[in-house]
Amino acid sequence: MIAVRRPDEHSPIGVFDSGVGGLTVLRALRAVLPERRFIYLGDTARLPYGTKSAESVARYSVQCAEALVARGIGCLVVACNTASASALEALRARYAHIPVIGVIEPGAAAAVAASRSGHVAVIGTEGTIGGGAYQAALRRLSPDVRVAAQACSLFVAMAEEGWVDGPIAESVARRYLEPMFSAVATPYGVPYRVPYGVPDTLVLGCTHFPVLVPAIRAVLPVGVTIVDSAASVAAVVAREAALSSEPSGKLKTADGGVQWLATDGAQRFARVSSVFLGHALRADEIEIIDL
Amino acid sequence: MIAVRRPDEHSPIGVFDSGVGGLTVLRALRAVLPERRFIYLGDTARLPYGTKSAESVARYSVQCAEALVARGIGCLVVACNTASASALEALRARYAHIPVIGVIEPGAAAAVAASRSGHVAVIGTEGTIGGGAYQAALRRLSPDVRVAAQACSLFVAMAEEGWVDGPIAESVARRYLEPMFSAVATPYGVPYRVPYGVPDTLVLGCTHFPVLVPAIRAVLPVGVTIVDSAASVAAVVAREAALSSEPSGKLKTADGGVQWLATDGAQRFARVSSVFLGHALRADEIEIIDL
Repeated sequence: MIAVRRPDEHSPIGVFDSGVGGLTVLRALRAVLPERRFIYLGDTARLPYGTKSAESVARYSVQCAEALVARGIGCLVVACNTASASALEALRARYAHIPVIGVIEPGAAAAVAASRSGHVAVIGTEGTIGGGAYQAALRRLSPDVRVAAQACSLFVAMAEEGWVDGPIAESVARRYLEPMFSAVATPYGVPYRVPYGVPDTLVLGCTHFPVLVPAIRAVLPVGVTIVDSAASVAAVVAREAALSSEPSGKLKTADGGVQWLATDGAQRFARVSSVFLGHALRADEIEIIDL
Repeated sequence: MIAVRRPDEHSPIGVFDSGVGGLTVLRALRAVLPERRFIYLGDTARLPYGTKSAESVARYSVQCAEALVARGIGCLVVACNTASASALEALRARYAHIPVIGVIEPGAAAAVAASRSGHVAVIGTEGTIGGGAYQAALRRLSPDVRVAAQACSLFVAMAEEGWVDGPIAESVARRYLEPMFSAVATPYGVPYRVPYGVPDTLVLGCTHFPVLVPAIRAVLPVGVTIVDSAASVAAVVAREAALSSEPSGKLKTADGGVQWLATDGAQRFARVSSVFLGHALRADEIEIIDL
């Protein structure tokens, strides 16, 4: 049994992912809650979660959450699509004393709110798309929604390699996205919208993908709204934080900072994280823990 | 303790890899030993090995080997670079009654034999290149060899996606390979070889890479020899098989066939394997085993 500390507005927010992808969520969280402390845990020893069975992912997720809860977090963010799909209910039941927020529901809700046509496209890893979690979440929120889905397997490697714009990134994005949006025909250079044809909203259903927005935007038809799950999650967490905080008169301007945890490979974590954070980490800032 | 059966020329050859990449090795083996039976095991539940610690990879490798030895194999092929680097000695000690052949030594030996300039380039996954196993094997075989090495992280995802030729594959190959071979200047269309500048041999140090040869060849300078570890391994295994077989007068024309084993995800294994085998497998041909 873990020692439960009552979370308060000073408790850090815990964020975990199978690796570095969740850093886009952390970055969005820090943008809206700059004064909060964060603890980020990347389960790099066991990545990727996407190819593991749901039982294994649920077990790993509980181990990650346990490590963060033991460090006194006041809110848990599951910044991994696979873990959000497989383990969110179990984590909510286990840690009922704190808000537990996944990435799928906020992304799906933002997409349903953004789409005027009720036709939404979602992209993610093979595991996320094949598992159908976004498709199901979208349909729960809006039973009549039409959903186009596409696994974009190369995007993760491209993001981790830092190839986030330029001709290669755009060619890859075009190859994945064009079929979903090709019902916009432009026979004489004038876009012609096929009835019921094309999504007007694209959900980035993988935490790696926000860094690829320049390439994705370059190949999308004009007028498609990109929904970044990371930003949607940050908005939900900020709302929870506002609800759970006591009103406070003092001015909050200090940077709360981040404590970095990983389960393997501090060097690689530090190097790859720069693509996602926009600044470099040092390997000695990252504590390697054993789950 | 496992029951040791004496291997003979009728015993199947066991091949394991963390996933589907080793299928290029299997394909090369079947080309030189068509009448032999094979058992292929993809440890898909725990891929990739490249990001795991050496201890974990050694443990997984012993479990894979155990499953194959229990099925009566007469020769063990470690068709995974990471496992070859971490576990080959342990496997040889444990299964002294059969030949145990990895992918690194045969590839390095073929490269040293092929290079006239003594300057060899090697490409692989981040784990293989960072671990330095090929570089070390090349230097053991030829202490004066110069080695250029480059991790090509996107190649694995590209191969599994079946994007093995065309403009995207060539652009990615150019971005990875050009810096290693750029000392060949072609200012007036005539290649000018900078002294000590460029490798004349490229080792494909990842079992996924042979399917990308069309794209790789398209961006390499003329005259560079591509050494495919898969073919080199097959040649070594064929020699071992010839040594251990009794001379036989009967004509061998039957296809020995392959027994397929994986630890997770038969559907994905069947689908992705077609890129590597050149023909499709059915998911129900693959037996899922628990290690």
